[in-house]
Amino acid sequence: MTAPAWLAATGVEWTDEPSVIAGRRVDRSGVEPDGMPLAVAFPRSVEQVRNVVRAAHSTRTSIVARGAGTALTGASSAGAGVLVLDLSRMDRILGIRPDDGVAVVEPGVITAALDRAAAAHGLRYAPDPASLEISTIGGNIATNAGGLRCAKYGVTRDAVLGLDVVLADGRLISTGRATLKGVAGYDLTGLFVGSEGTLGVVVGATLRLRPLPEPTTTVAASYADVAGAAAASVALAAARIQPVLAELLDEATLDAIDAAQGTHLRKTGSALLIVQIDGGAREAARAVEVLGRDATELRSTSDPEETAALLAARRGALPAIERLGRPLIEDIAVPRSRLAEAVREIGVIARRHDVPICTIAHAGDGNLHPIIVAGESVDAAEAAADEIFALALRLGGTVTGEHGVGVLKLPWLRRELGPANHDLQRQLKALFDPHGILNPGKAL
Amino acid sequence: MTAPAWLAATGVEWTDEPSVIAGRRVDRSGVEPDGMPLAVAFPRSVEQVRNVVRAAHSTRTSIVARGAGTALTGASSAGAGVLVLDLSRMDRILGIRPDDGVAVVEPGVITAALDRAAAAHGLRYAPDPASLEISTIGGNIATNAGGLRCAKYGVTRDAVLGLDVVLADGRLISTGRATLKGVAGYDLTGLFVGSEGTLGVVVGATLRLRPLPEPTTTVAASYADVAGAAAASVALAAARIQPVLAELLDEATLDAIDAAQGTHLRKTGSALLIVQIDGGAREAARAVEVLGRDATELRSTSDPEETAALLAARRGALPAIERLGRPLIEDIAVPRSRLAEAVREIGVIARRHDVPICTIAHAGDGNLHPIIVAGESVDAAEAAADEIFALALRLGGTVTGEHGVGVLKLPWLRRELGPANHDLQRQLKALFDPHGILNPGKAL
Ligand SMILES: Cc1cc2nc3c(=O)[nH]c(=O)nc-3n(C[C@H](O)[C@H](O)[C@H](O)COP(=O)(O)OP(=O)(O)OC[C@H]3O[C@@H](n4cnc5c(N)ncnc54)[C@H](O)[C@@H]3O)c2cc1C
Ligand SMILES: Cc1cc2nc3c(=O)[nH]c(=O)nc-3n(C[C@H](O)[C@H](O)[C@H](O)COP(=O)(O)OP(=O)(O)OC[C@H]3O[C@@H](n4cnc5c(N)ncnc54)[C@H](O)[C@@H]3O)c2cc1C
Repeated sequence: MTAPAWLAATGVEWTDEPSVIAGRRVDRSGVEPDGMPLAVAFPRSVEQVRNVVRAAHSTRTSIVARGAGTALTGASSAGAGVLVLDLSRMDRILGIRPDDGVAVVEPGVITAALDRAAAAHGLRYAPDPASLEISTIGGNIATNAGGLRCAKYGVTRDAVLGLDVVLADGRLISTGRATLKGVAGYDLTGLFVGSEGTLGVVVGATLRLRPLPEPTTTVAASYADVAGAAAASVALAAARIQPVLAELLDEATLDAIDAAQGTHLRKTGSALLIVQIDGGAREAARAVEVLGRDATELRSTSDPEETAALLAARRGALPAIERLGRPLIEDIAVPRSRLAEAVREIGVIARRHDVPICTIAHAGDGNLHPIIVAGESVDAAEAAADEIFALALRLGGTVTGEHGVGVLKLPWLRRELGPANHDLQRQLKALFDPHGILNPGKAL
Repeated sequence: MTAPAWLAATGVEWTDEPSVIAGRRVDRSGVEPDGMPLAVAFPRSVEQVRNVVRAAHSTRTSIVARGAGTALTGASSAGAGVLVLDLSRMDRILGIRPDDGVAVVEPGVITAALDRAAAAHGLRYAPDPASLEISTIGGNIATNAGGLRCAKYGVTRDAVLGLDVVLADGRLISTGRATLKGVAGYDLTGLFVGSEGTLGVVVGATLRLRPLPEPTTTVAASYADVAGAAAASVALAAARIQPVLAELLDEATLDAIDAAQGTHLRKTGSALLIVQIDGGAREAARAVEVLGRDATELRSTSDPEETAALLAARRGALPAIERLGRPLIEDIAVPRSRLAEAVREIGVIARRHDVPICTIAHAGDGNLHPIIVAGESVDAAEAAADEIFALALRLGGTVTGEHGVGVLKLPWLRRELGPANHDLQRQLKALFDPHGILNPGKAL
């Protein structure tokens, strides 16, 4: 468990200080790998990344690329024998070209920092994971992170035009393009997005920026039950409305928020739907009409302060749930029409295993986050999680909507993909990383 | 040059009738391959496709999948020794699930037919190549087709959630998902999109449908020169406006249209910009203001008939140019800020080679279609095309924005990708298609 001698020769800053290593052994999932990583390297340039990867390749040393370590799946955990490649110091925004609608960044840039820099030009970086103040663009790319407004503006994949990637043997390739459109060659960019550091190390990205829309209308509508809230979100599409975000909070979540924030959300209904519209006054008025049909209460505003107040419930949900016990944050997606059924079934699973489960959903995409309050009963929580994954597949959905596979969902990934697809993906991995040094044991 | 004996054993309908074969030897590029294909098979089911591909694999027979043959690159051309797999009879829309925002289709469905079926539910299939009335979804997927409204609503890639693909050895895999979001495993879906039939045969697709927006505002603005029109389109983004489409027509194109349609477009300016807005009245008003700043004339309407009249210039452009002589339709993309420079340089190239070039651009994406009127001077046209590709790369762009590589752009693809990327793509091809039977000699 000492740092390899070749590391010094790469010219990269590094340490094997136990406290630093320990801080990069786990991610936010809490998954504990066996042993301690060898060392942490802090490259500051593409050349330094190449030197480290090349040396790791020839010595067959495993590498885990790390952004901010906010993954919820064990994807960025690093155990015995592993060199952590911490990219957080490659954090420069290399350029924003407003006329082109493009930004060029290093991988360690914090997501929200890019969005703020774009805002200075009337633009924005659309993908907004709830972790945007703490996660990195490189990590977002490697997990294909989603966010609240991806219902309308797309996930990370939709914002990535081109990548610079260091391959497993240290070669550097540029994929994609600097233009908004282009179809030259196979879509390697898309292949690296979401590959959780197992196919290459992202050292640069060309990203799409979009016009920052005019101030939005925000609606918070309460319903008698989850089925009513889910139906209202489906009715929006039928009314030809594309919300920016549509967040559904279930009864257990509302109880947790009321307890934490002293609010009375549960008084007005058993489910809350928060919807934002930026398509103009007419679309907003129609949204209010549609959402109001079966609502037990509805509030709507365009005022920034009132908007923040309406969104406070959603923003405070996770902290509120965390007060109940350690949360296991799950992440499935189902066809949108099965949303109500999914929430109902999750309630049944919670009762069967006697663990509290609070469910928040990005209703516009059918993406649910059942948050299992594990407490002491870790086994019950895991059993409940397994039933939730099975439920997702039974409803024609997926075991991960946006958080990724990491180590936690490996067995379920195989079931979801089926053998032919899984085989092909393994062959792809072998092609890109013949010695299996890039984040081994993850994602596939 | 007789149909292989094994074809009959697959149970598929087929023919080696010379007139039928000859009709499937070329695509709309007019690229002439050597010799005649062996035969054309017309599968009606996934099983039939598998049977044919399996037999072709074991006999090492080359297969060219074909939708409607509207490719402009030679991608769907088929010469000696090739079996054409014509998918146009697998043309069923298997289901539209409005509540899920999803359609499931066979590959031979005509693009516009799907869009019309979606419209019955208040939804639409967003990608709208100009060929939408004659091209197939399978062909759109295999070329990652773009369209007019992709500036706001994305290209084909953005609408494909999942695929059923028959691999080179006849295995069937399902990629992606039936949900709007999902990140399980590597993005094989994206890899097949745009691969021009060289990695597998698409036999089914799950596609995203979007709400059909409220009627739009359409603006046609004339400018003194192309630079003015390009600057106006960039100014839209600076004003935080996301147009649905922004089509720029240059002087030569306006002359051709005036000659064909008896209009007087050139009287009001040397460049025309047609912009459509669907984000509400306020966004439309701002667009009119921004576009009007330097316009020599501006018309704006929300009336359907007047809209059609304003769009008539754009729709009639290709037919008008075709009256001048056989068109070579090119397709480059540049960073949006280089649009004016690109159009100007294309004018210089036209004069140098003494061939008329009319340029139409999807200005919102920086995607240009210089249409070279070849006439008798085929060599001059090809020399001009080569200079246009070099120009695209010099301006930091790509040699194909949406039409693909086919055979026409193979040499340029290598230059654009560079050796490391090109190598990796070749290895990918070998992984998916070890015997090289799928559309050999194309796309890579
Ligand atoms: C409070 C909270 C809220 C969250 N909300 C969301 C949400 O709304 N949506 C969502 O999708 N996720 C969410 N997440 C999960 C997490 O934030 C995202 O997955 C995020 O994209 C991870 O970024 P990171 O920089 O922390 O990456 P890390 O955790 O450091 O790494 C994640 C994966 O990416 C790889 N990686 C990192 N950088 C690179 C690189 N440069 N090259 C190659 N591989 C790399 C790692 O090896 C690992 O496999 C949330 C997490 C928390 C704690
Ligand atoms: C008038 C006109 C206007 C056009 N406008 C546009 C435009 O605006 N935007 C744009 O992007 N393109 C445009 N095109 C080009 C062309 O229409 C598109 O590339 C279209 O996607 C091709 O569809 P198709 O069904 O004709 O495919 P084909 O020409 O039959 O095939 C194209 C490629 O896809 C492969 N393929 C076809 N079906 C399958 C399948 N099921 N599985 C695997 N591979 C398959 C073929 O092998 C070939 O490589 C235009 C063409 C014309 C003639």
